Amino acid sequence: MKPPPPRTVRHVIVVGTGVIGTSVALALRQSGVTVHLADRDPDALAQAVRMGAGEALPGTAGRRAAVVIIATPPSTVVEVLADAQARGLGSVYTDVASTKSRILAQAERAGCDLTTYVPGHPLAGHELSGPSAAHADMFTARPWALCPHPSTPPRAVRRVAALVTLCGARPTILTPETHDEMVAAVSHVPHLVSAALAARFAAADEHILSLAGKGLQDTTRIARGAPALWRDILQHNAHPIATVLEAIVHDLTEAALALRTTDPEALTDLLTRGNRGRDQILNVLHPTPTP
Amino acid sequence: MKPPPPRTVRHVIVVGTGVIGTSVALALRQSGVTVHLADRDPDALAQAVRMGAGEALPGTAGRRAAVVIIATPPSTVVEVLADAQARGLGSVYTDVASTKSRILAQAERAGCDLTTYVPGHPLAGHELSGPSAAHADMFTARPWALCPHPSTPPRAVRRVAALVTLCGARPTILTPETHDEMVAAVSHVPHLVSAALAARFAAADEHILSLAGKGLQDTTRIARGAPALWRDILQHNAHPIATVLEAIVHDLTEAALALRTTDPEALTDLLTRGNRGRDQILNVLHPTPTP
Repeated sequence: MKPPPPRTVRHVIVVGTGVIGTSVALALRQSGVTVHLADRDPDALAQAVRMGAGEALPGTAGRRAAVVIIATPPSTVVEVLADAQARGLGSVYTDVASTKSRILAQAERAGCDLTTYVPGHPLAGHELSGPSAAHADMFTARPWALCPHPSTPPRAVRRVAALVTLCGARPTILTPETHDEMVAAVSHVPHLVSAALAARFAAADEHILSLAGKGLQDTTRIARGAPALWRDILQHNAHPIATVLEAIVHDLTEAALALRTTDPEALTDLLTRGNRGRDQILNVLHPTPTP
Repeated sequence: MKPPPPRTVRHVIVVGTGVIGTSVALALRQSGVTVHLADRDPDALAQAVRMGAGEALPGTAGRRAAVVIIATPPSTVVEVLADAQARGLGSVYTDVASTKSRILAQAERAGCDLTTYVPGHPLAGHELSGPSAAHADMFTARPWALCPHPSTPPRAVRRVAALVTLCGARPTILTPETHDEMVAAVSHVPHLVSAALAARFAAADEHILSLAGKGLQDTTRIARGAPALWRDILQHNAHPIATVLEAIVHDLTEAALALRTTDPEALTDLLTRGNRGRDQILNVLHPTPTP
């Protein structure tokens, strides 16, 4: 039997029962945490409850939760946070949006209480959306960024870090700016580039795909993400993403020119840097040398 | 016990014991075909022999093989073909290079005998190189393009198709031009784009990768291919690749501009086309609806 959760996180409210919110709730339930759920879509809420992710949050004010987790799209986080803080739903608040600088600045401007808000972002794959794609081990051994404002007391950060650990993830403290630059490079830009690759086949007849294989399958997997959510994410982290994207556009423009003019050295340079970058990625993701 | 191979392909010579040549040899050996191997690199040849891919081709002229498979890089195929035909090594010849138009044109110009040459291309993943990465089931259920010249007799095409079937693959007859356009879109351009994504991390310290996950891992997997071989492939199919690449550069340039100017509609359009293209890819690769 698992030990009971630490006293500081025995009761959690999850607002937003999409794939991430429901996965967080399932992971916490497995650790014995009491979870209350809320979603403006009654069907998504009912499905998360059916999956065992927790009970629906009662309409009347109950006991204050240890942590309120806001698992809604980036552009709605601050509104939900302000409302939850006004209702006094929790002692500490966090979110799971994949951009941090703009949300924290908006929260500050909106007059949210930054002493009880610890911005967060679990790094986990979720190209499918909705509660049905959720699973309890989504965060196992994954990093989970926490980007607190300098004014946020360490006690609040520790409480959210304890919750992250209960989900099986590794809490990683970063500034919002560093987080956003890192995530632009490792997640947001790959998403856009994957979409641009897949977009070649949006109007294709099946014939052209009859020679397709694992290379195309892997490079376009994440192009399946929900467009409205991803537009929201991309706009929230616009400039860090644009900077990385412009560097890729530069490389691919040079490659196209090299192909049109038969200039092999430009191709060799890009392919060699691609090898080196892939080695770096494998070093980090698979520290032991496996193929 | 497997039935013996058809009489038309009981003896095959594989020239080039890299990952593809050795995999073809292993697959044919499993079907009971006699395989002789040649490679200018004695170590690669010895390793393929040790792996059970066949025996080294004797120096003195032996019995003419039913099929000679040229599994060398694109830029060397015609030279190897001309030499093999001059020596009378086989009754029919094929190759496995991933570009077809230029090789066939070069073979014609070099005076190769096109009545015994059936250009081929097995569509199989092989981001690693060398015989050690070879395996007998590499081609199972994969398409294998055959792009014969109009003057090539159907008997020669049927013989190579029988060999392809023995390897577990599905022979697909295409014109060289159609093949090259299809492969540019489904394989060559994804390779370059994957390299450009991975290249962002060529000089990165490990810190920026600490938030990386499966999305980056999958989108950059094929960036590991050998640069010299891939430069060769890309140059051989330069214009079809450049055309697709220019369309992607256009989309990504628009996306970067949309991010700099906060124009969400351009992003929504690209993401939606990405969704649609990914659906098309899944329809072809996984005809039953699985996530």
